[in-house]
Amino acid sequence: MANAMLLPVLISFLIMPFSAMALTQDFCVADLSCSDTPAGYPCKAGVSAGDFYYHGLAAAGNTSNLIKAAVTPAFVGQFPGVNGLGISAARLDIAMGGVVPLHTHPAASELLFVTEGTILAGFISSSSNTVYTKTLYKGDIMVFPQGLLHYQYNGGSSAAVALVAFSGPNPGLQITDYALFANNLPSAVVEKVTFLDDAQVKKLKSVLGGSG
Amino acid sequence: MANAMLLPVLISFLIMPFSAMALTQDFCVADLSCSDTPAGYPCKAGVSAGDFYYHGLAAAGNTSNLIKAAVTPAFVGQFPGVNGLGISAARLDIAMGGVVPLHTHPAASELLFVTEGTILAGFISSSSNTVYTKTLYKGDIMVFPQGLLHYQYNGGSSAAVALVAFSGPNPGLQITDYALFANNLPSAVVEKVTFLDDAQVKKLKSVLGGSG
Amino acid sequence: MANAMLLPVLISFLIMPFSAMALTQDFCVADLSCSDTPAGYPCKAGVSAGDFYYHGLAAAGNTSNLIKAAVTPAFVGQFPGVNGLGISAARLDIAMGGVVPLHTHPAASELLFVTEGTILAGFISSSSNTVYTKTLYKGDIMVFPQGLLHYQYNGGSSAAVALVAFSGPNPGLQITDYALFANNLPSAVVEKVTFLDDAQVKKLKSVLGGSG
Amino acid sequence: MANAMLLPVLISFLIMPFSAMALTQDFCVADLSCSDTPAGYPCKAGVSAGDFYYHGLAAAGNTSNLIKAAVTPAFVGQFPGVNGLGISAARLDIAMGGVVPLHTHPAASELLFVTEGTILAGFISSSSNTVYTKTLYKGDIMVFPQGLLHYQYNGGSSAAVALVAFSGPNPGLQITDYALFANNLPSAVVEKVTFLDDAQVKKLKSVLGGSG
Amino acid sequence: MANAMLLPVLISFLIMPFSAMALTQDFCVADLSCSDTPAGYPCKAGVSAGDFYYHGLAAAGNTSNLIKAAVTPAFVGQFPGVNGLGISAARLDIAMGGVVPLHTHPAASELLFVTEGTILAGFISSSSNTVYTKTLYKGDIMVFPQGLLHYQYNGGSSAAVALVAFSGPNPGLQITDYALFANNLPSAVVEKVTFLDDAQVKKLKSVLGGSG
Amino acid sequence: MANAMLLPVLISFLIMPFSAMALTQDFCVADLSCSDTPAGYPCKAGVSAGDFYYHGLAAAGNTSNLIKAAVTPAFVGQFPGVNGLGISAARLDIAMGGVVPLHTHPAASELLFVTEGTILAGFISSSSNTVYTKTLYKGDIMVFPQGLLHYQYNGGSSAAVALVAFSGPNPGLQITDYALFANNLPSAVVEKVTFLDDAQVKKLKSVLGGSG
Repeated sequence: MANAMLLPVLISFLIMPFSAMALTQDFCVADLSCSDTPAGYPCKAGVSAGDFYYHGLAAAGNTSNLIKAAVTPAFVGQFPGVNGLGISAARLDIAMGGVVPLHTHPAASELLFVTEGTILAGFISSSSNTVYTKTLYKGDIMVFPQGLLHYQYNGGSSAAVALVAFSGPNPGLQITDYALFANNLPSAVVEKVTFLDDAQVKKLKSVLGGSG
Repeated sequence: MANAMLLPVLISFLIMPFSAMALTQDFCVADLSCSDTPAGYPCKAGVSAGDFYYHGLAAAGNTSNLIKAAVTPAFVGQFPGVNGLGISAARLDIAMGGVVPLHTHPAASELLFVTEGTILAGFISSSSNTVYTKTLYKGDIMVFPQGLLHYQYNGGSSAAVALVAFSGPNPGLQITDYALFANNLPSAVVEKVTFLDDAQVKKLKSVLGGSG
Repeated sequence: MANAMLLPVLISFLIMPFSAMALTQDFCVADLSCSDTPAGYPCKAGVSAGDFYYHGLAAAGNTSNLIKAAVTPAFVGQFPGVNGLGISAARLDIAMGGVVPLHTHPAASELLFVTEGTILAGFISSSSNTVYTKTLYKGDIMVFPQGLLHYQYNGGSSAAVALVAFSGPNPGLQITDYALFANNLPSAVVEKVTFLDDAQVKKLKSVLGGSG
Repeated sequence: MANAMLLPVLISFLIMPFSAMALTQDFCVADLSCSDTPAGYPCKAGVSAGDFYYHGLAAAGNTSNLIKAAVTPAFVGQFPGVNGLGISAARLDIAMGGVVPLHTHPAASELLFVTEGTILAGFISSSSNTVYTKTLYKGDIMVFPQGLLHYQYNGGSSAAVALVAFSGPNPGLQITDYALFANNLPSAVVEKVTFLDDAQVKKLKSVLGGSG
Repeated sequence: MANAMLLPVLISFLIMPFSAMALTQDFCVADLSCSDTPAGYPCKAGVSAGDFYYHGLAAAGNTSNLIKAAVTPAFVGQFPGVNGLGISAARLDIAMGGVVPLHTHPAASELLFVTEGTILAGFISSSSNTVYTKTLYKGDIMVFPQGLLHYQYNGGSSAAVALVAFSGPNPGLQITDYALFANNLPSAVVEKVTFLDDAQVKKLKSVLGGSG
Repeated sequence: MANAMLLPVLISFLIMPFSAMALTQDFCVADLSCSDTPAGYPCKAGVSAGDFYYHGLAAAGNTSNLIKAAVTPAFVGQFPGVNGLGISAARLDIAMGGVVPLHTHPAASELLFVTEGTILAGFISSSSNTVYTKTLYKGDIMVFPQGLLHYQYNGGSSAAVALVAFSGPNPGLQITDYALFANNLPSAVVEKVTFLDDAQVKKLKSVLGGSG
């Protein structure tokens, strides 16, 4: 169909609408130097392919710690390209015997994909307190609905690795133990709102660096 | 402007567009006999004023129990008129010494308005575990962001009452103690994911009716 | 489970992920000195508990005026903590014989909770113009769907007070009388678009301070 | 790249993923025989090109009436293909001297495009009651923000026609006069909530077919 | 109802709530000098009626080009008043024999209204690749679901004009030919990901100004 | 705090609110036997842990085909547990020399995580037609904004595997070649809307099973 004689005309025409629509927003890479907004960060100028790429999940996290586990995030703070796109990721490394303690993500659902080893995972529904738990092997996926308490631990005889995707660029992470014991919330208040014994609360406050 | 001779014509004209647009959705009162959907319940037919009204928060909840507190919900399940409207409510009664234990609402932010007495309330941010706490007197309001752990207890010398509004028709309620101890989640798992001592876990499982 | 010898290790591990995720957005208290965006104000830095608390609804509004009523808002402009959280509030004081005139909230549904007295409230559906009206006593709640005309007036023999919650941080308030008569919209235009008589329009323009 | 010998293999491969993903939802044409939901109607089966096409706006509406105007809707009730797509349309015919009376669309913003004649249009902001008004000629567009009172009337010496698009499939239409006068809302209530005189209210109730 | 003696009081009362609620967001006209955000541009100050009005679609686009067609956008970049309102528009001029080539709008559904001439339009569903096509005459409308490939061409014996509305203020426009041939994407990559022959790719790269 | 004598009272109290709130929606596993809605499928009854788990991505897809690649979806149709949760997944297997052809997902952004091998991936922005391309190794992630054309191919010397997550439960997949050549869209129309030569169109229609 394209007649060579008409080519110069075609070029000049088709380029026109693009310059006129230069503000179209295909994406909005976060400018982390600006204040956040309820919908995410303002968009940075001068975007390149590197903004949509992240290498930080390639290396295993350091699991040489008591819980023998590490969470490596690729949220908007680490990976500005996901800003406004409704998705983010993290890497989970769990050594033998390791555990990702009970926690929630206030702002996203989570989808876990096991890439190595065996992970026992569960979540607990609200109101009825039903426990939904599965043993996951390499290649299995499990989804954890937004805001519900869940946990993962290594259920096998070797290290476990998982990729975790979230339904938002900034899912948040609230580890119950840290919310209760790793701050200055007074022990008396913790006990009142949890029914835990005083000795238990003080022990964990000590372990996790809390005061009060 | 209105000329009496033209009135019959006016009536016939203006009625016409309404019949043509009879499917307009001003609201969608829940038909609780249908399956829910991710956006809420299907709309019931035959709506009347009573569907937008609820009397169930008028009476105090019964606080004659260990925690000396009661939560009376007006969520979509009790108050179908809020379906699809992005809002719901509940009444909090907290006797002297009473407490609403640590909990989250996975699907809504909460705004609390004290109508009687004094309430100490707090929430804990994710990641940084900062505690935000206030003593609230009659007429004060406080907002608790979606999905974050929070609690309320009576901080005064008389009964306290509060109206609570939520930013969704079905906010959910996950009480941490119940999620951990009031079901069949094995004690060994609870201990692994919380660092709590075995004796503590078994004591609370016994108290709250859990097994395993 | 926690072995005292391992505690230092536990602390150093668990703190690590938090510093790495410092940009998590649990909330976004409005920085009212910045320009608003379609999703709300940019988030302010240096948040404290006071940002989630508001005392301004504790005192009764002044009802010594013709309509014998007062609306005290706790929208994002007064209560920056609700920014991005999908909720806000207001207090309604209506003296005997008082009225909150016909109005809409363009950007939120409303849930009204009567704390004192008796309120007659109603809303009108679009298209079919059906009126939904209820007499509300202390403790009753009623919901008004987004954008629909509604009104409240004191239907009892004493002052009435209500807490009102909205399904958004900035619900807006468009009082029909003010939209028509309290500005410079020419009388001829008002008459054309409302069918009101010229004398009626001019009378209310005079009352409400409009011109034209 | 395509080698003829490999073609049969290519066909069998590429067809496979499609059958496996047959539930993909590109669109959701409304099944109007089902109950609506807060997000729109359930999707009908057996969709064809005709479902995405509507002829009903091609003919002029009948403006032989007092207001000398007609609104012809292409909302989800008339045009089921827009269900779930965030858009709908209507046609406005306004004869000389005609007017579309003061109204709101509770559930959508409106974009008006004049195709014939001259239209004077305005909307009124909430809270500050500022009037924004323009004279629109053929080819001009104007946008009316969601939920705000607005009006259009023929400002020229010939018939006017406009296409109106809405930011939702079911925008609603609340004509203020009809909400007040075309139903059984008692005159005393109308007067109380609008400050209108009794004679004015009764006159318009009579004109518009209301009672009470 | 309005007693003249009380009028001064009425004015002072009713004005009060407006000043107190001055931050209400009825609209958010884009300040294009600021960085965009995922929800749209920050709101500009000093809004006037002209911000909600756009004249740029009144004149025909120049169709003196190979495709004999022109798209004139009224997106947020040209018409800042639509920012945050979920709607925008464009004008389509298609001379006899003209065509708007295969394209998608990544961020909006489209509703097309033919104002002059005859347009053949079609879209293709994902997964099942079903083609939905219609011949549209003056006054007809057709809707194209978000993100799906579609096209329009003049199917008649005179020029065609259409108004196009979008379900978002910044719909984007990705013309398949331009995405493939009007940039520096290497020919070998284009061939690999499209199965097109090398000669075809190089011919169109030359026509459309691409390199590589 | 918990006194053994009070335990029976505690149990009876705390169970009460749960039965009263039985309709809380933590999740909404798709009932695929029902009609879809714009927000997803109605919720099925009788949910168990298996509903949140999917094994179908564990095995490699069959890449013994011309493009030497396979996409194995875990969308709502295969994995009903993701319904309403804003997330889904797929597995990509690309043999040496294999390619996932140019395509879009109309309803989701995509996050790709390489688990084996080397993948060259790119996407093209709308309007400016800029190409963003990266070579991805094991552990790397890349994000592809919603609705934009993108592709992946094996850039290494061994098989490549990736997990792909989407920002919605039903992202859709529109492969450009299939949309153009694997259906009954007439060759003349394809040529008109793509500028492709007739021979090229007919060749690919033949290869991909299209007619017309």
